[in-house]
Amino acid sequence: MDKNILSYESVSLDDKNNTVVILDQTKLPYDTVIKNLTTQKEIWNAIYKLEVRGAPAIGIAGAMGVYLFAKAVDEQDFDAFYAKFKEAKEYLDTARPTAVNLSWALNRMENVVLDNKNLPISEIKQLLHDEAVQIKEEDIWVCKTIGEYGLTLIKSGDGILTHCNAGQLATAKYGTATAPMYLAHEQGYSIKVYADETRPLLQGARLTAYELHSAGIDVTLNCDSASSTILKKGWVNSVFVGCDRVAANGDTANKIGTANLAIAAKYYNVPVYICAPTSTIDMNCPTGEDIHIEERPGEEITETWYSNRMAPQGVKTFNPAFDVTDHQCIAGIITEYGIAYPPFEQSLKEIFAKKNASK
Amino acid sequence: MDKNILSYESVSLDDKNNTVVILDQTKLPYDTVIKNLTTQKEIWNAIYKLEVRGAPAIGIAGAMGVYLFAKAVDEQDFDAFYAKFKEAKEYLDTARPTAVNLSWALNRMENVVLDNKNLPISEIKQLLHDEAVQIKEEDIWVCKTIGEYGLTLIKSGDGILTHCNAGQLATAKYGTATAPMYLAHEQGYSIKVYADETRPLLQGARLTAYELHSAGIDVTLNCDSASSTILKKGWVNSVFVGCDRVAANGDTANKIGTANLAIAAKYYNVPVYICAPTSTIDMNCPTGEDIHIEERPGEEITETWYSNRMAPQGVKTFNPAFDVTDHQCIAGIITEYGIAYPPFEQSLKEIFAKKNASK
Repeated sequence: MDKNILSYESVSLDDKNNTVVILDQTKLPYDTVIKNLTTQKEIWNAIYKLEVRGAPAIGIAGAMGVYLFAKAVDEQDFDAFYAKFKEAKEYLDTARPTAVNLSWALNRMENVVLDNKNLPISEIKQLLHDEAVQIKEEDIWVCKTIGEYGLTLIKSGDGILTHCNAGQLATAKYGTATAPMYLAHEQGYSIKVYADETRPLLQGARLTAYELHSAGIDVTLNCDSASSTILKKGWVNSVFVGCDRVAANGDTANKIGTANLAIAAKYYNVPVYICAPTSTIDMNCPTGEDIHIEERPGEEITETWYSNRMAPQGVKTFNPAFDVTDHQCIAGIITEYGIAYPPFEQSLKEIFAKKNASK
Repeated sequence: MDKNILSYESVSLDDKNNTVVILDQTKLPYDTVIKNLTTQKEIWNAIYKLEVRGAPAIGIAGAMGVYLFAKAVDEQDFDAFYAKFKEAKEYLDTARPTAVNLSWALNRMENVVLDNKNLPISEIKQLLHDEAVQIKEEDIWVCKTIGEYGLTLIKSGDGILTHCNAGQLATAKYGTATAPMYLAHEQGYSIKVYADETRPLLQGARLTAYELHSAGIDVTLNCDSASSTILKKGWVNSVFVGCDRVAANGDTANKIGTANLAIAAKYYNVPVYICAPTSTIDMNCPTGEDIHIEERPGEEITETWYSNRMAPQGVKTFNPAFDVTDHQCIAGIITEYGIAYPPFEQSLKEIFAKKNASK
């Protein structure tokens, strides 16, 4: 599983040209558009508009963005440098509120600054570069390891249902929910994936179906609302999804519709697995009630992808980007330090103990 | 509740010009296009393409269509007349398989022919006209009565969630699931309706939101996948939906996504009411397993409403038009002869006993 499934990376740093390079995901699957982001505003916009998306990928983009900003700061005095850094970091952090990875990555970058305040600014800049690159490298390892743990839950012949895109496009490589699929495929398992199209922005149709289809994995696209039929028919043995923030009790914020899917899966006794880098698990957040859910413009549901109106003028809309899946609907949370099973209050603590011991 | 909410009827008969007149629902909410259907092929296409849709409305369209065909048959011999009638009836019956109303209405028309085989063909034609008109008139009474029963389950201040369009556009007038809403609104209740957009053909966005918004009812549009968030927040007190076929045990086939919604509603203890003309209840169908579910072209999910591709070329699709809601997820079935409560095997029999006694 070492080669990239796609020809392009979702996000990378071009340090020489001072740009964050992204594959514009709003244009897929029709066009492969590579965008070079230079200013903080461009990076903020790319994250807000989902041109780069997926919890791990926006963390990486944020870290690279704040590094490029810091690199250009002309101050030699630490306090002046840090004040400007802090402002840029806080600005980028507002681009999307639900995924913990963005603020997690930006906090890591800030800690590099604060932990090295006695070094010359030029050295701090170099350490920021290294940290941003490191965050991306770690993500590749994390996804691969999640894939290996996830693979233990799959057997050849299985059907797997997924929602949204927790794929290579959402991460540096492999994806989270897709990593076990890519690995299973590589090992010659016969698997059949069902991809929820994922309204309103159709990440399942445009991105997951695109990725898996490109990789030669048997994938079938369905409306989100057809998932209960697929579960009822017994076509799938498990549900694998990514996540944007996992609370300490296992409640999981992920793309809107994940909760509907998980409730239906529970009704039909199909296990739901959350693929969660530990960076996405927020042990300071006791339950899903404490997760802030982003609400997005109503035009995402009243206009089609190409701006054709599909609802009457003036109608009110409710367009939350995420929902919270009750931990009671979750069979396991797959991390790079193993699989947490219920009760999650305990098992997630054990995951973090294992993580800390490995350092 | 006597005036039409919309300026146009969903389906009507222009006997003088030998056409079935429909409001083309695939063009709403942008354009109000009235179509005159003359040939059997045109009527079949209009039903298949959902230009006229909704279980009651397609029953009415089918009855009117087969009447116009019969009217034009030149035979004076009963057997020759009946053979041609039967062929047209069976052809129209293939337009959509799941809703029982189409075959129910066509069977009523056939019975008019068979019950009057000793009359002159010209008189049979007149009786067919009267039957088609009668089917429509009955539908208006049925919907109004369902509205009155449904109203007893609503109080002012309630939130109501609905899926697809079981509205005036799906019937001759008032709708089924919308009839209690229109009546509540007319009586000055403050109600708040949430309309699932209803992928893939967006009947909720294009039709339900359009109807209710036009009528001045407070309606909010949401993605199907946001329904569990709405239920969890306690914003709605009940779910009202229509149906395409109800089995004798209460299992209900309705637009794809109804089952997901009903499972989520059960999880959050919100009652689900099925608004069902008795013509939609198929006592010869023991359970939902016996209902044939129509599968429709994958292009409905891979293309947007205006034919822009939104999934990769070559991807497989699964696009069932309906699903079956387990009777265990249904709180009540509202008919024109009262509300059936679980266990439905018994209560639906009582509804039919009441119906038969009223004749």
